Amino acid sequence: MAIGIDIGGTKVAAGVVDDQGTVLAELRRPTHGSDPRAVEATIVELVSELGADYPIGSVGIGAAGWMDLSGGTVLFSPHLAWRNEPLRQNLERLLNRPVMLTNDADGAAWGEWKFGKARGESRLVCITLGTGIGGAMVMDGRLERGRFGVAGEFGHQVIMPGGHRCECGNRGCWEQYASGNALGREARELARANSPVAQEILRAVDGDIDAITGAVVTERARQGDAASIELIEDIGSWLGLGLANLAAALDPGMFVVGGGLCEAGELLLAPTQRAFKRNLTGRGFRPAAAIELAELGAAAGMIGAADLSRSLRISEAGGAQR
Amino acid sequence: MAIGIDIGGTKVAAGVVDDQGTVLAELRRPTHGSDPRAVEATIVELVSELGADYPIGSVGIGAAGWMDLSGGTVLFSPHLAWRNEPLRQNLERLLNRPVMLTNDADGAAWGEWKFGKARGESRLVCITLGTGIGGAMVMDGRLERGRFGVAGEFGHQVIMPGGHRCECGNRGCWEQYASGNALGREARELARANSPVAQEILRAVDGDIDAITGAVVTERARQGDAASIELIEDIGSWLGLGLANLAAALDPGMFVVGGGLCEAGELLLAPTQRAFKRNLTGRGFRPAAAIELAELGAAAGMIGAADLSRSLRISEAGGAQR
Repeated sequence: MAIGIDIGGTKVAAGVVDDQGTVLAELRRPTHGSDPRAVEATIVELVSELGADYPIGSVGIGAAGWMDLSGGTVLFSPHLAWRNEPLRQNLERLLNRPVMLTNDADGAAWGEWKFGKARGESRLVCITLGTGIGGAMVMDGRLERGRFGVAGEFGHQVIMPGGHRCECGNRGCWEQYASGNALGREARELARANSPVAQEILRAVDGDIDAITGAVVTERARQGDAASIELIEDIGSWLGLGLANLAAALDPGMFVVGGGLCEAGELLLAPTQRAFKRNLTGRGFRPAAAIELAELGAAAGMIGAADLSRSLRISEAGGAQR
Repeated sequence: MAIGIDIGGTKVAAGVVDDQGTVLAELRRPTHGSDPRAVEATIVELVSELGADYPIGSVGIGAAGWMDLSGGTVLFSPHLAWRNEPLRQNLERLLNRPVMLTNDADGAAWGEWKFGKARGESRLVCITLGTGIGGAMVMDGRLERGRFGVAGEFGHQVIMPGGHRCECGNRGCWEQYASGNALGREARELARANSPVAQEILRAVDGDIDAITGAVVTERARQGDAASIELIEDIGSWLGLGLANLAAALDPGMFVVGGGLCEAGELLLAPTQRAFKRNLTGRGFRPAAAIELAELGAAAGMIGAADLSRSLRISEAGGAQR
């Protein structure tokens, strides 16, 4: 057994995962992003509780941010107060077990490739639609992490120069147009414009415009609200355009799209596929990648991180290799 | 010895290349794009002439367009009248030698990685700036060609939705902003606007606006014309932005930039590097790829194709592997 831990902006989820990718037990705690020591303490607590009932060989940790190629150090994490944090060393001392750090999107992609929707796919691009866009690639059964371990930041490809401001310091990044945050922002703008079509959305938040999030809109869309469905269609159009851009560059056999926004299901997938087909360069003269929703849901990152901790070997050159 | 053949939109270049990447002899002929049989005949003629003086083991052919993963069939070529053309089979019969087909940008990237600027680089992205943008990746000593063999079309990533029309059927593709064609178009627009700053450029073409090309502007810039230098700076800004996008996605250790537009040298490289640094996501928290001009010049594609014909093994999964 291995433990997979998924550290997000608001919570830490930990699970015992067997070698078939099945989650046998799971625990959650809120994160204390401002204090790395507190996050470490939370991890120790979770491993200790889960380890009481299962024999645990190793621990895999997936977190938003950039890990160095050896899987030992957090170079940078946008939501957590980690800068050049030697997290693995600290944790191996505290846990007395091998620990592997990985980017959360890499963990999710690995989970989907090993146990989920993309089993057997030789060229996988995985997109996680949450507050932003997480990205990862599995090529020939290897996580492709780039020369310095920071590949896969598809969400920060500029697709609209001079467009919406992004936290990364640029303007017009893809994730400002195709993410849960983008969906919430567009819905709030619609509501602030006093548009009558935003009625249903406003009712859902008792008129509190600031409480409108992507999740609220997604839920309204599932209940049939026309404006919410349109807002998700707009996100799908940007998503499809960005996937076509990735297909031009990477030519994968499959895109797997996961993350919270996928709760919208076909309401998101259909416009995404339309926009992808319309924008794919060379359409008609080439095969096109499939676009599929993730199979493992929110557990993908945890499952992937656990599996990676069991078997990951890091090549000098930059690939995380099984 | 192997022969490398570079088939472009206007000419076929063939060279005898030794296993150190040295071109021992070279010949050129105009292409007859409208007739695949005529191009085959030209190739046979070139190989026969070069083969008279050197022992030739194999022939590698680089051409604009998409080859299937086995290196046997041209799926699509924008400048040549080939559609699903079994070029290798035809040529092996005619030449009595093993033949390997490869995309011209892949050939150039392989040449630069094996014998040129990028020797030893584990994550190379190669950009060829000609009429459009050619792209290719060498990862861990393998050409990465994607699932269907059509990866690397970076020039057709949309970076300006609704922008300039592209021959590929989309609008706003990167190559409409950072290529020789883009440079020519911008200069012609400046001249048509009767701008006094376009005087030098107009003088170079005797007032014939339609004769203004990227090459004309590049030459004027090298002679010190301020407007031409500005036009190249604009191209560099778009080039740097696009390279930053690629760095976000692929995180290479090095970009090698080749092709005709590189005649501009530092006039292009300096603004490119400025824009890259300004647009790189996560700047300050990550190492940045080097941006270098190609070393092998116009011969890179020929040298790479020759070398690939000697030793290429194609994996089922999609990588061209040594």
